[in-house]
Amino acid sequence: MTTRDHALELDTQDPLARFRDEFVVAEPGLLYLDGNSLGRLSHRAAAAAETAVRREWGEGLVRSWHEWLHLPAEIGDRLAPLVGAGPGEVMLCDQTSVNLFKLAWAGLRHSGRTAIVGDDSNFPSDRYVLAAVAQAAGGEYREVAVDPVVGPTADELAMALNDAVGLVSLSLVSFKSGAIADLRGITDLARRHGALVLWDLSHAAGVLPVGLAEAGADLAVGCTYKHLNGGPGAPAFLYVRQSLQTELHQPIPGWFGHDDMFAFDAAFRPAPDIRRFAVGTPPIVSLRCAQAGIEVSADAGIEAIRAKCTGLTELLIERFDARLAPLGFELASPRDPEQRAGHVSLSFGEGYRVVQAMIARGCVPDFRAPSLIRLGLAPLYNRFVEVFDAVELMAEIVERGEHLQFEGPKKGSVT
Amino acid sequence: MTTRDHALELDTQDPLARFRDEFVVAEPGLLYLDGNSLGRLSHRAAAAAETAVRREWGEGLVRSWHEWLHLPAEIGDRLAPLVGAGPGEVMLCDQTSVNLFKLAWAGLRHSGRTAIVGDDSNFPSDRYVLAAVAQAAGGEYREVAVDPVVGPTADELAMALNDAVGLVSLSLVSFKSGAIADLRGITDLARRHGALVLWDLSHAAGVLPVGLAEAGADLAVGCTYKHLNGGPGAPAFLYVRQSLQTELHQPIPGWFGHDDMFAFDAAFRPAPDIRRFAVGTPPIVSLRCAQAGIEVSADAGIEAIRAKCTGLTELLIERFDARLAPLGFELASPRDPEQRAGHVSLSFGEGYRVVQAMIARGCVPDFRAPSLIRLGLAPLYNRFVEVFDAVELMAEIVERGEHLQFEGPKKGSVT
Repeated sequence: MTTRDHALELDTQDPLARFRDEFVVAEPGLLYLDGNSLGRLSHRAAAAAETAVRREWGEGLVRSWHEWLHLPAEIGDRLAPLVGAGPGEVMLCDQTSVNLFKLAWAGLRHSGRTAIVGDDSNFPSDRYVLAAVAQAAGGEYREVAVDPVVGPTADELAMALNDAVGLVSLSLVSFKSGAIADLRGITDLARRHGALVLWDLSHAAGVLPVGLAEAGADLAVGCTYKHLNGGPGAPAFLYVRQSLQTELHQPIPGWFGHDDMFAFDAAFRPAPDIRRFAVGTPPIVSLRCAQAGIEVSADAGIEAIRAKCTGLTELLIERFDARLAPLGFELASPRDPEQRAGHVSLSFGEGYRVVQAMIARGCVPDFRAPSLIRLGLAPLYNRFVEVFDAVELMAEIVERGEHLQFEGPKKGSVT
Repeated sequence: MTTRDHALELDTQDPLARFRDEFVVAEPGLLYLDGNSLGRLSHRAAAAAETAVRREWGEGLVRSWHEWLHLPAEIGDRLAPLVGAGPGEVMLCDQTSVNLFKLAWAGLRHSGRTAIVGDDSNFPSDRYVLAAVAQAAGGEYREVAVDPVVGPTADELAMALNDAVGLVSLSLVSFKSGAIADLRGITDLARRHGALVLWDLSHAAGVLPVGLAEAGADLAVGCTYKHLNGGPGAPAFLYVRQSLQTELHQPIPGWFGHDDMFAFDAAFRPAPDIRRFAVGTPPIVSLRCAQAGIEVSADAGIEAIRAKCTGLTELLIERFDARLAPLGFELASPRDPEQRAGHVSLSFGEGYRVVQAMIARGCVPDFRAPSLIRLGLAPLYNRFVEVFDAVELMAEIVERGEHLQFEGPKKGSVT
């Protein structure tokens, strides 16, 4: 059984410990366990924002476009190794749902089929977009019912695949449970059925190695504001396998996707590379923040991040067993560390009120209705002792009934 | 004939003169005449970016979403009076081309028809998007050929309208010439033919009053990084007439457009208001910059901005007649100030090289291939004497042949 002293000892042995100093920690006592929703501000991102605003925009003015123009692909190349992609396969642009729309559309049209298969534990925004894309193609969006604690499996999907299905789209890591899907197995399965797979890596990128190229993955999107610490609403990324790029046509042909955008041609001529999946002018200040966040993760190395992350979630589950299970909490994440990414979810009937009490006590987790408390473990700045203390805090709150002082959820509540 | 002393005198009488102090002017001698491409950084935007990064993100962390969540509509309400719209009719989200795609799609489907009419002097990105939307609807995108110096007219469009046309989409102000189209006349014409009109206000918003509600306008989009000084790639805006909002369905149903986004419903249920046209998480730092820029314009008042802008473009054309016409430059903008917005275009065969020489001499205009020099006049920070000096500089460059030292354009040149 791990004691608090042992947790402190784990921190002294942590090879990533120095990365906490990369981040702005305004309230040292705050237990911030929501990096899976919004990652922390790094000093590099703060500096990058200031440079982008004061020097690039303020002094350089429109002349800075000479440099800004190439950022989406340059940052993509920096992010690529973190998700196992090659140069020229990743680009930053738009928001995750817009990128999902573009690639789902492009992939489905390429297949010549009209149906999309997903799963009912996927992130709602993805489900809405996928249904709309299938409908626009005159087809249907079908969902496999899955156990969110396990995530979608190749066996379940195999039952749903047939000759009408041109695209399978799933989250690699479940937003509910942190469960990791079988990237390779599902990619292979879909290929045997003549379908492409479009992965949402939002909860995966920056917290575990994703072997896109190794698995022969086709398409992926993801956000940069969670484990990549890119800042609120920072531009998302998209990945298209090199050999697929010139075969795909996305539905929103904007000038940033044109082969020669300043030729101002009357007709759209898509760039012969990843740029064809861009649309309009990217939000540069937010893009510079995303770049800085990605740099920090790249410097730490994704293997080291993964190793520490597993240690943090293992400790959390050990402490859950000791302190929270007896109080009625249930584990809503995989027990097998190989199956688990960067957050651990606990189900508790009064979860919303417990989360309000935790926030009042200086611990910020995440809540997803109706009863899920998500505890995000960010290997770059979270400490082992924070995991220990957070579980103790939750146990204390419930033991003392502190959460009963707080009201239940209202419609439209953020957390 | 205006002398330099008279131009200086005009500056002393300028009621907006104090607004120059709202902006960061890093090189006081720089003649920045490209606010129609990228507006200057305001002190408020610099402060807003710092607050958004350091306080809201760095200290507030995920808790700041309580405030951020409402920003897109709040900033829209602040922008609304500048374009003659009411509360709840304008929202900031995505980039201009993405917003154009969403509203063109929604408007065309609502009409039950399949053809879109535009014009061949519209901004290329708009033309690409409109062609794609018509094609996706199984229809066609037809362009009226127009004189870019005049812009599209109701008479020209009348010839192209028939029962197949569900949507007309035009720029209110021509990116080439600054010519202003007839908002009211074209809106009325389209309505008589049962079509909606979707306006791109990118070169109009913040530089002239746009009477959207007064004209009964249906739909509009626009960027915030030109005359609204929102920063590079800042989020764009969209406008949907109140009475149309619940009738329209946009093609990218993301969680920010859901009636209750944190309910995480399995199926999309569009918000019963402007929010239904949003998609994903907006880039907050860039959004805060846009907000600051919009605030400055709102404080100055659009009527005062328009009055000064007309004075600046009138002076420019007077000086063009005196100094540049004799050297072979041609005016590529309307002579009637009522027909002209915030930039004046001059055509010159060696325009690209002249622009390079101007930049080398500390004057930044804008160039659009093959021969258009665009001079943007930003009433909030440009001075009358800057207009005088810029024309003198251009005349000197050509008289001395300074531009001949510079190379011609290469593929992919930014300016």
